[in-house]
Amino acid sequence: MPFPTYWLRDNCPCTDCRDPRNGQKLFQITDLPADLAITAQHEQNGHLEVLWSDGHRSRYELARLAEPAAGDGRTEADKRLWEAADFTAGIPEADWDAYLGDPAERVAVLSAVRRSGFAVLRAVPAVDRQVLEVARTLGFVRETNYGELFDVRVEAAPNNLAFTSAVIAPHTDNPYRDPVPTLQLLHCLANSATGGDSGLVDGFRAAAILRAEAPEEFALLTRTPVPFVFRDRNTELRAERPLIEVDSLGRIREVRFNNRSIGTLRLPDPAAAQAFYAAYRRFAEITLRPELRLEFRLGPGDCLIFDNVRLLHARTAFEQDGSRHLQGCYADLDGLFSTLAVLERRGAALDAIAELFEGEGASEYLGEAVTMAEHMLQAGALAEAAGAPAHLVAAALLHDVGHFGGSGLDLMKGRDNRHSERGAEWLAQWFGPAVTEPIRLHVAAKRYLCAVEPGYRARLSEASEYTLGVQGGPMTEQQAAAFAARPGALDAVAVRRWDEEAKYADAGTPGFGHFRPLLAALMG
Amino acid sequence: MPFPTYWLRDNCPCTDCRDPRNGQKLFQITDLPADLAITAQHEQNGHLEVLWSDGHRSRYELARLAEPAAGDGRTEADKRLWEAADFTAGIPEADWDAYLGDPAERVAVLSAVRRSGFAVLRAVPAVDRQVLEVARTLGFVRETNYGELFDVRVEAAPNNLAFTSAVIAPHTDNPYRDPVPTLQLLHCLANSATGGDSGLVDGFRAAAILRAEAPEEFALLTRTPVPFVFRDRNTELRAERPLIEVDSLGRIREVRFNNRSIGTLRLPDPAAAQAFYAAYRRFAEITLRPELRLEFRLGPGDCLIFDNVRLLHARTAFEQDGSRHLQGCYADLDGLFSTLAVLERRGAALDAIAELFEGEGASEYLGEAVTMAEHMLQAGALAEAAGAPAHLVAAALLHDVGHFGGSGLDLMKGRDNRHSERGAEWLAQWFGPAVTEPIRLHVAAKRYLCAVEPGYRARLSEASEYTLGVQGGPMTEQQAAAFAARPGALDAVAVRRWDEEAKYADAGTPGFGHFRPLLAALMG
Repeated sequence: MPFPTYWLRDNCPCTDCRDPRNGQKLFQITDLPADLAITAQHEQNGHLEVLWSDGHRSRYELARLAEPAAGDGRTEADKRLWEAADFTAGIPEADWDAYLGDPAERVAVLSAVRRSGFAVLRAVPAVDRQVLEVARTLGFVRETNYGELFDVRVEAAPNNLAFTSAVIAPHTDNPYRDPVPTLQLLHCLANSATGGDSGLVDGFRAAAILRAEAPEEFALLTRTPVPFVFRDRNTELRAERPLIEVDSLGRIREVRFNNRSIGTLRLPDPAAAQAFYAAYRRFAEITLRPELRLEFRLGPGDCLIFDNVRLLHARTAFEQDGSRHLQGCYADLDGLFSTLAVLERRGAALDAIAELFEGEGASEYLGEAVTMAEHMLQAGALAEAAGAPAHLVAAALLHDVGHFGGSGLDLMKGRDNRHSERGAEWLAQWFGPAVTEPIRLHVAAKRYLCAVEPGYRARLSEASEYTLGVQGGPMTEQQAAAFAARPGALDAVAVRRWDEEAKYADAGTPGFGHFRPLLAALMG
Repeated sequence: MPFPTYWLRDNCPCTDCRDPRNGQKLFQITDLPADLAITAQHEQNGHLEVLWSDGHRSRYELARLAEPAAGDGRTEADKRLWEAADFTAGIPEADWDAYLGDPAERVAVLSAVRRSGFAVLRAVPAVDRQVLEVARTLGFVRETNYGELFDVRVEAAPNNLAFTSAVIAPHTDNPYRDPVPTLQLLHCLANSATGGDSGLVDGFRAAAILRAEAPEEFALLTRTPVPFVFRDRNTELRAERPLIEVDSLGRIREVRFNNRSIGTLRLPDPAAAQAFYAAYRRFAEITLRPELRLEFRLGPGDCLIFDNVRLLHARTAFEQDGSRHLQGCYADLDGLFSTLAVLERRGAALDAIAELFEGEGASEYLGEAVTMAEHMLQAGALAEAAGAPAHLVAAALLHDVGHFGGSGLDLMKGRDNRHSERGAEWLAQWFGPAVTEPIRLHVAAKRYLCAVEPGYRARLSEASEYTLGVQGGPMTEQQAAAFAARPGALDAVAVRRWDEEAKYADAGTPGFGHFRPLLAALMG
């Protein structure tokens, strides 16, 4: 298989080449010799092993090498382009409490922002500065010249049209910033005025329509830098970027659209300016097509979250017959996408752990009267019944996951499978040390308790007595003192006691699903 | 002159079309009729007057219409591309106190970041979190997964190579973020270790060398999106962007370079990957050329500010024989450029005011014994001598700028030139209401004082008595009550009293330069 030489070496997954904690590469591309070559290679069991001319050895999973391009989720290829009728059954929304409490709800909301460009949270407390709290659940607030947050209400001397009661045509915010804030939140505190409804237009859809109807005008807008400007007493911003930005494959990636802040375009000749304005006007007309415009009304407690490099937002004019007050802030899509990816990763991890309990865990537990799953569920239930804090319930529940993968059999054959370390390492992908360290130490805790607590060893089950020998036997006095001084030693001892007790058949413990919310809350 | 129709109309400067406060346009491009045409036009005194087919009238300064393209300062066209030898005479630097106290020093530092990509502040207090204070002098802090700030020192379980003592090759930070932070600050709190020196490479220069030496490889790097990735327990970032980004004119605009975080590139065929890696390795080798690398050592109190989408930064390895501790944070270039533009605008405004005092101000002051400049300088000096707060000294000093432009002669011909309003409006470009409102009201204050204070009118100079009539005479009782209730009325009365007194020849007042720092500090 003709893998390109430097590409293959650059992707070596060994721990000398990549930091296992974060996947960061530990060498520079220039560290590789100029005449690097493959000396030998062979494929086996879905793996490719390579010996390199500089003596390095690499081992690859072939399936990973062949994975398709992932993309970064930012182009039209990863979006659901929409028009208003696509939401006749309702817009993406969730209640604030559910969003906070249920990872699945958070995934749904953030996925909607990623795919459709927006979502609305309902029943968010309608209090001052709450919008910043919402932003912090999904990323990082981006401060601008308007402050950490901005108040959208009628002002006496507005420095922006937003702070009047006038109609506002569909636009994106802050195109005069570079980098432009890629995410915006608008939290409604009051809206009893007549009018002042919100409108959204999918700018990617509008751009795609332009591309279909007038490909040359679309192309012109992608390659004409437009000067966006904003100026007040303390600010002078200028950014030159195209109205429609595409990636090198021509896929729509960002839209900037705001006639208010377009400065004087300087083009080489009048014909170029004429052509630009024709294309710009056509694009602007498309953004005004009624079928593209989704209208809804924000009420107190509603918080609209939207993609500011894709969606255009608008507002109808309103009367001064009631109060209207929104608070807004900016944030960025990269943070939101990261939050979403981590939530999805955690959900997948919980699924995988659940599968271990239900599949492999249903098998025999090293000669005990219970299955592995029953044993761990009992340990978790005992911790819970004892009123232990959540991290110890989780540690008790998960303490033996290192046995999974069949290695428990090794242990019964007289080889220490080091299951406590293996389990702790694996779980450290998702859980902090409060959960993983008692697991890492729970075998040591047995050796410790047998050394220091009279009568403890006599209470071990037959299998546990057998494995004690494999694991090193009771600690010496010196070992026991060192163990007791380690952080987490007390927690490990607590887990160990539940471990010993959790070996009764038919104890009627709850299933894995009972513990899932507790585990979800501990991840991170 | 063949101005393009919609371009011309889109740039109408009238106050119906543009908000004079911020230059924002007050109409949508689609508000213009589809058959818009010029009905009549004529040029006079450097202006173009246009009557449009929809009845609108526009009046343009021809010089402004013909201005060349400004650019946004972000491409290589606006930079000084450098190599190490360009700084043998020293790197751009300033002392923290001078930077804070002297607008010219701030302009020099921020201009260096804009032009050369970096500057160093010296003698910044070496205290925790100070780097955030530095960032706030020039823009807005960008929070990331590393926090609002990050500590660069050796950590036990580093999630990034930065937090070890290892050598770090030239790179840009956070390429896996989109938007990437465009500015970085590194503030040295301690550096007594052997090694740990800093290095900078001009990534634009390196890219320009690649373009000169291997144009096809340069082009390949500008059009190949590279997946940058970062992953730890709470973060999962992915951005696909080219190593070298150019604008539509092909000018280098951004560089991302960080082998540590390049993920698995998925290209359509092995030949494409082979070609990419050849180009990438060539670019990487250029960044390592010794003549490109500027080396220096940060000591306690030094704060390096640099452009993170242009400069590559590096560090030599260091021994664990001393402590090394930097605090860093991210910010963005748009904020820095805005701060710089506002400072430059204010400097230009002070120059213009100084010129008024020295030029036109040296002429006769409406029949008084002093020139206009002497009169205003005396008023300012009187305010200062009275221990007035800075904003009142400024108001006294500038109260008559509305007379400039020759309109004082109108007043003596019996026409009210409304100089107080004109002056206040003009000054409001740079000064807040504490300065401008007493100026706006200083004529009203004369009419007020003549109405309410026995004997006041008798003290007026002959010329002032004459203009009192033109300005409306003493206030009625009702007018006086309304005036006294206005915010700033007391301040206006104070300014007025200094105004009356500031009419003595040869009073030996200080020149305009004496007041310049006070004015500079009040701007904004």
